[in-house]
Amino acid sequence: MTRSPGANGDGPLSAYDLDSLRERRSVKWATYPPDVLPMWVAEMDTPLAEPIASALTAAIRRGDTGYAAAGRLPEVYAEFASRRYGWRPDPAGMRLVADVMSGVVEAMLLTTTRGDRVVVNTPAYPPFFVWLDRIGRHIVESPLALGESGYRLDFDRLERDFAAGAEAYLLCSPHNPTGLVFGEEELATVAGLADRYGVRVIADEIHAPLTYPEARHVPFASLDTAASARAITLVSATKAWNLPGLKTALAVPGPETPTELARIPEEVSVRAGLLGVLASEAAFAEGEPWLAGLMAGLDANRRLLGEALVDKVPAIRWYRPQATYLAWLDCRALALGADPAEVFLERGRVALSPGPRFGAAGQGFARLNFATAPERVAEAVDRIAAALQTTEFPRNVPNDGGLGDRKRG
Amino acid sequence: MTRSPGANGDGPLSAYDLDSLRERRSVKWATYPPDVLPMWVAEMDTPLAEPIASALTAAIRRGDTGYAAAGRLPEVYAEFASRRYGWRPDPAGMRLVADVMSGVVEAMLLTTTRGDRVVVNTPAYPPFFVWLDRIGRHIVESPLALGESGYRLDFDRLERDFAAGAEAYLLCSPHNPTGLVFGEEELATVAGLADRYGVRVIADEIHAPLTYPEARHVPFASLDTAASARAITLVSATKAWNLPGLKTALAVPGPETPTELARIPEEVSVRAGLLGVLASEAAFAEGEPWLAGLMAGLDANRRLLGEALVDKVPAIRWYRPQATYLAWLDCRALALGADPAEVFLERGRVALSPGPRFGAAGQGFARLNFATAPERVAEAVDRIAAALQTTEFPRNVPNDGGLGDRKRG
Repeated sequence: MTRSPGANGDGPLSAYDLDSLRERRSVKWATYPPDVLPMWVAEMDTPLAEPIASALTAAIRRGDTGYAAAGRLPEVYAEFASRRYGWRPDPAGMRLVADVMSGVVEAMLLTTTRGDRVVVNTPAYPPFFVWLDRIGRHIVESPLALGESGYRLDFDRLERDFAAGAEAYLLCSPHNPTGLVFGEEELATVAGLADRYGVRVIADEIHAPLTYPEARHVPFASLDTAASARAITLVSATKAWNLPGLKTALAVPGPETPTELARIPEEVSVRAGLLGVLASEAAFAEGEPWLAGLMAGLDANRRLLGEALVDKVPAIRWYRPQATYLAWLDCRALALGADPAEVFLERGRVALSPGPRFGAAGQGFARLNFATAPERVAEAVDRIAAALQTTEFPRNVPNDGGLGDRKRG
Repeated sequence: MTRSPGANGDGPLSAYDLDSLRERRSVKWATYPPDVLPMWVAEMDTPLAEPIASALTAAIRRGDTGYAAAGRLPEVYAEFASRRYGWRPDPAGMRLVADVMSGVVEAMLLTTTRGDRVVVNTPAYPPFFVWLDRIGRHIVESPLALGESGYRLDFDRLERDFAAGAEAYLLCSPHNPTGLVFGEEELATVAGLADRYGVRVIADEIHAPLTYPEARHVPFASLDTAASARAITLVSATKAWNLPGLKTALAVPGPETPTELARIPEEVSVRAGLLGVLASEAAFAEGEPWLAGLMAGLDANRRLLGEALVDKVPAIRWYRPQATYLAWLDCRALALGADPAEVFLERGRVALSPGPRFGAAGQGFARLNFATAPERVAEAVDRIAAALQTTEFPRNVPNDGGLGDRKRG
């Protein structure tokens, strides 16, 4: 059932066939019936990188399933960031958290108070809305600008939103769901605005390791500005090495506020997962060769997806992400209403993430996850195309989603 | 380095020697230097039960580390509770949470509002204070009564605290740190008071599987009272099978409020760990034989600890817990001040949990975790005794804490 990784040149994305993936218990595979092809939530269909699997197996052998401690993870992350971005944050001030969202919540509790306004570029990661609301922070949706060449930061809008009285700015860099990578100059402009209006910057950089070769991730905190010296950055191995269910991320303080995160209660850190800490250490310390193979496969899928969309569903617009395995599809020309993903699911039996969950700017959009085997990326586009050609798509497709023959052929 | 479990008749508690345990990365073993014997946080020095290790290994093999879904866990737990307690909660209304503390927070958010008073019996699990404070609930410390025969619920005090205007009562049953198991009659009295004063009961029953043979755990929600029909119960496999770092618990609604927990946002459930879900399913479905062996070892340790205390440190009073592997030691006669654990650590190089963290009722107390090999329980008492006989306990003990020869002899 399991192909050996890389056997067909696809690398980790093609390691498992559909039958194997359907044995998974994670939300991506456990949510929909077997006739639906799941291309939604940010999980990858890859095997674990060997150093990660080894670290987990060793932990099981020694019964090491007690409460999480950060251990060597801060130091290992600092070395990774130094190698990869030329940025060496101080491990001493970092704090272990369960996930980037938990870290964002803690950062907001430290830097803002109830009722404060927090600026978020939309479209935006849906849990931002839920969690900021839960701690009584008011989200100000500050849409990215969408032009002929794709998305970009809208500095005029950002300045207006800062000037209206924001206390914090939640920067998502690289940006989910658009896959935008912000350049050093753009980030410096952001920092200048933040300084002018006294806005604290909280940077979610979880997708940074997934930056494609044509772009370069610049950590916001690595800039030489006042705003970046006080930024709180959230990082994690969970996206690039597919570990979201292991619950581990780090909150990284800025160089000018090195002890700020000490105010996060210890009880917050024990919400992280110990196996996640061990897996993340292995990922950051020894996972770069695996990541290089993954990125080659994702890059090929990114090209394949673009060609298939032009070929099969030319009315859908998208802009190649510079990072992430997420494709943000502008389906407004299809006139399927606010939530095209619903139509794709009902008529095409392919599950994408509904655009409206990403804020008002997501109406008429859907997000597609292409971290899977190339033939499934192609199949997803076929199913989207089929959904548009029929109002009554046949539900009784074979259990393997119709992929079996093609896959084995 | 690893003995085969049960080889010497001690069962899982003696499976690992000190060198193996010191390789662990969990907080129990990673916090103190190697000359300290760690007998503090609620982790056990056991290997994983075989069904759990198998489930985790299989998940690693299929790369199943995406976001957590509850899967079969609610159904499996309902069957476990039915077999073990004659209580069959409805799986449909249960919600996955990261840990019991997260579940308590969610229950409080559902049943109370900011500024509301929540009654907690003290001494109490320290994170209760931190997290209830974070969500703006006011903790009312309602001490258990301590008499000649040990701790018991103080119904007069509880009624006064309810009558003073409490909205919720956080019942910890079996009780941590005292190890009290509440009988059906006591729980019915609690329910009567809760009904009379309109207090919602939130029951933390995480220690229930660790009840010793002479006692019987009665789920509060299994009573036939109005208060129990509306109770929210938090359960988990993490204490009895040593999985706290895997982040999985369940919130269980009462029979009269079966859909109440549907209001918990989905974003809360994805904070749970997927490997924790799989491990917990294995524990509840197939982990009872292992648990029986564990309880036999804990029972023997409980007796050994009692005898060693009488023999070596008779001034410490304790009452044999009816559940849990935690011993709540009344050290007030030693006149060591509010935090005797500090003295034991400094002078005896043995780490217990400081009593004052459990509330005002914990001053002069310390909590000892005896879920380890019997010789380490004996060694812990020796170290406590030594701490009392010297003001200058030698720091330069061998790396194995002095246990090596005895252990291998």
